Amino acid sequence: MKNFTSFADVGDYKALLQQALAIKANPYGYQHIGKNKTVGLIFFNPSLRTRLSSIKAAYNLGAQAWVLNAGADAWTLEMADGAVMNGGTQEHIKEAIAVMSQYCDVLGVRTFPTLQNKAEDYEEVVFNKILQYATVPVISLESATLHPLQSFADLITVAEARKKERVKVVLTWAPHVRALPQCVPNSFADWFSEVDWVDFVITHPAGYELDEKFTKGARVEYDQHQALEGADFVQAKNWSSYRHYGQVLQNDPSWMLTPAHLAGTNDAQFLHCLPVRRNVEVSDAVLDSPNSLVIQEAANRVFSMQTVLHELLK
Amino acid sequence: MKNFTSFADVGDYKALLQQALAIKANPYGYQHIGKNKTVGLIFFNPSLRTRLSSIKAAYNLGAQAWVLNAGADAWTLEMADGAVMNGGTQEHIKEAIAVMSQYCDVLGVRTFPTLQNKAEDYEEVVFNKILQYATVPVISLESATLHPLQSFADLITVAEARKKERVKVVLTWAPHVRALPQCVPNSFADWFSEVDWVDFVITHPAGYELDEKFTKGARVEYDQHQALEGADFVQAKNWSSYRHYGQVLQNDPSWMLTPAHLAGTNDAQFLHCLPVRRNVEVSDAVLDSPNSLVIQEAANRVFSMQTVLHELLK
Amino acid sequence: MKNFTSFADVGDYKALLQQALAIKANPYGYQHIGKNKTVGLIFFNPSLRTRLSSIKAAYNLGAQAWVLNAGADAWTLEMADGAVMNGGTQEHIKEAIAVMSQYCDVLGVRTFPTLQNKAEDYEEVVFNKILQYATVPVISLESATLHPLQSFADLITVAEARKKERVKVVLTWAPHVRALPQCVPNSFADWFSEVDWVDFVITHPAGYELDEKFTKGARVEYDQHQALEGADFVQAKNWSSYRHYGQVLQNDPSWMLTPAHLAGTNDAQFLHCLPVRRNVEVSDAVLDSPNSLVIQEAANRVFSMQTVLHELLK
Repeated sequence: MKNFTSFADVGDYKALLQQALAIKANPYGYQHIGKNKTVGLIFFNPSLRTRLSSIKAAYNLGAQAWVLNAGADAWTLEMADGAVMNGGTQEHIKEAIAVMSQYCDVLGVRTFPTLQNKAEDYEEVVFNKILQYATVPVISLESATLHPLQSFADLITVAEARKKERVKVVLTWAPHVRALPQCVPNSFADWFSEVDWVDFVITHPAGYELDEKFTKGARVEYDQHQALEGADFVQAKNWSSYRHYGQVLQNDPSWMLTPAHLAGTNDAQFLHCLPVRRNVEVSDAVLDSPNSLVIQEAANRVFSMQTVLHELLK
Repeated sequence: MKNFTSFADVGDYKALLQQALAIKANPYGYQHIGKNKTVGLIFFNPSLRTRLSSIKAAYNLGAQAWVLNAGADAWTLEMADGAVMNGGTQEHIKEAIAVMSQYCDVLGVRTFPTLQNKAEDYEEVVFNKILQYATVPVISLESATLHPLQSFADLITVAEARKKERVKVVLTWAPHVRALPQCVPNSFADWFSEVDWVDFVITHPAGYELDEKFTKGARVEYDQHQALEGADFVQAKNWSSYRHYGQVLQNDPSWMLTPAHLAGTNDAQFLHCLPVRRNVEVSDAVLDSPNSLVIQEAANRVFSMQTVLHELLK
Repeated sequence: MKNFTSFADVGDYKALLQQALAIKANPYGYQHIGKNKTVGLIFFNPSLRTRLSSIKAAYNLGAQAWVLNAGADAWTLEMADGAVMNGGTQEHIKEAIAVMSQYCDVLGVRTFPTLQNKAEDYEEVVFNKILQYATVPVISLESATLHPLQSFADLITVAEARKKERVKVVLTWAPHVRALPQCVPNSFADWFSEVDWVDFVITHPAGYELDEKFTKGARVEYDQHQALEGADFVQAKNWSSYRHYGQVLQNDPSWMLTPAHLAGTNDAQFLHCLPVRRNVEVSDAVLDSPNSLVIQEAANRVFSMQTVLHELLK
């Protein structure tokens, strides 16, 4: 693995999952890998889970971490090649990323979509420039279209919690009050459509179809009730429209997940990447039930990151 | 000790004080306790001493620390149970604290009072929710009503600096330009009213009486001159009114501590938790005299935190 | 070396340079020096290179680092002795620096010039107060007039890259869109005018003369073309006027460095401290040529800092 930006970077996902479970069982047993290594973490927008789980993952591995809040440092990057930099941008991304590569052994970067310029977002223009100029391995801490550390943590969680060999996993759209990126559902589909012991189903209102590049022919069922039938795991998440890019087409509150929605499932366990808008996306009763895995899922963010760091630094 | 939020959590304060002095004498001698441990530090408002002394304490103990500035990350918490989160709050404190508990072995949290809603502040509504949802030990880095790490550092300082077995310690109100919380004086009273080798006296203008829950029957003397007579230690601090909650009733400059005020003391040594408004709370001559312990007191913040971390992690 | 604020603090610069090259060759070989040590880093304004290279330098040396963003913590310092602090300032620099000295073993501080009050800036009023009140060694991370860690990194870079014993080094003024401090050129002159294997020349438009305290009689050549003739190394940098303090007198674009400007040099290698305004200060063709040393120069910021930390902590 050279960089970690999507499922395709992983190669053998079963081996990576086994490595994650081994690291979780013995989190401080791999510190020879991180000794004298520095993990650089660059955030272009706020973060709680990704920031703290990445720092913890570096520590567990015996490495050090630094965090740069690109925004808060009032440090504006020029992205255009050949630009005459006589305006507001203070440093070209070419130097910025090359220089930061000098100060760490692996670079984690979080960028974000415009939700306005579909082509720019889906071509990952910013993230690809980072990959182009970095001279150390790069980890996506969430890009314009994907959030692979989250999906890997979800996979670890489902693997740990499943009660039978083959399981049905449903990704269901949920209402929200804002227009959110498609990163988490794209990435969830990118990973779970590939797992050979998972029957994967996506359900959402019409108009919220995800990019087929990520759904890879997964079954899409517009009837939420039917989709959830017999599910072993349900991941709820809001996203804005990909087709009508960045728009909130409708926000039907009947899609909010409640115990009634889960009645036809196989006593489904519940996933959400957090943060969650309680009683908007999901009801308290679902979040607070013993079947909720959301805290375990967040805890596994440490081990997805630690495993990726282990692969890139070993 | 399960958490560290007030004097009552301590149990045997004499043993804790002995432990602090032992740690101060050999600050790097306890690193087996902190090995592979992570100290999470969450600040809901700015901090200098608490932030840096806590980081240093973690390092001394062989542990790692991370800091989260809750405000700067533009990450707004919902506090109400059962809330329909369709407004400005992005994450419920229930998930936020449970998740952060996954990323550290002990959690230090600084909250602050509203200074408007007395019941909410004195019931420690926010801090108690943190205690409720945390799954690791919690240290108060200052709450709405108390600042126990400061008081413990003050106790270490007085224990180190006293020239006789039994000492008189006076807490005197001081003028200021803003309405400040009662945390530091509440906590100072909470601790020093319990120390069996201290004669503890509080002095302030009428109307600035502290909550009797913390003063525990300590002598209150409204005549500052009389209160200071024979004092071995004087701690000056401003606070706003508890009775007329959060108000500045008056700001009599004659309460500013000067060498003249200390004339009747037993060559008293001077304490202040800092930051101090020079020549408003206390005159330069007091702060710059050889009897001022303020820097030693700030240095002892490392050892109060390190001792508490040692107790909670051992 | 007691503090590190200018070339004069160094003493034997040849020995320091040798130490830097030895440390770069074996960056983790000196960790006994940093064991249990804490490096405090205080920024009064934003920073990328200095912040991250200083953290990396501390880690390499086996030490820990903390960073305080003085501004972001909304923590305003009183500088005036004897002030009655009844206004906006919350803490006197006397306590702030003395207290921070308790929480680290060496203190790095970045201040900045007013660019309005020449006397205050060139007397380093703020930095000298920090030196006065600190009780641990202090490293300038850039002050009002100097940036010695940058100049030391430049010296390491030139020493590594030179192809012959004696080299000509030219500092050339470059256009910019804002009024910048004189710190980097002052400091470059402060160091390179002293190196006995360097022929040092400064070139700039009339009116941009630097303080002779730093140029120390170095050759100043107003004709850029003539200055660059036969140069082995060229450092480009914008600065505002020292004589007409803080002003942009003119911004002649013909001073922007292009391959044509370098035609008469001895195949000169190119230096810039970064960030650089591409196609304003320097053209893409110069920055992207194989003769550009800017990334190596930025990488050497780790080793200039690590060497200084090594000297101050050993």
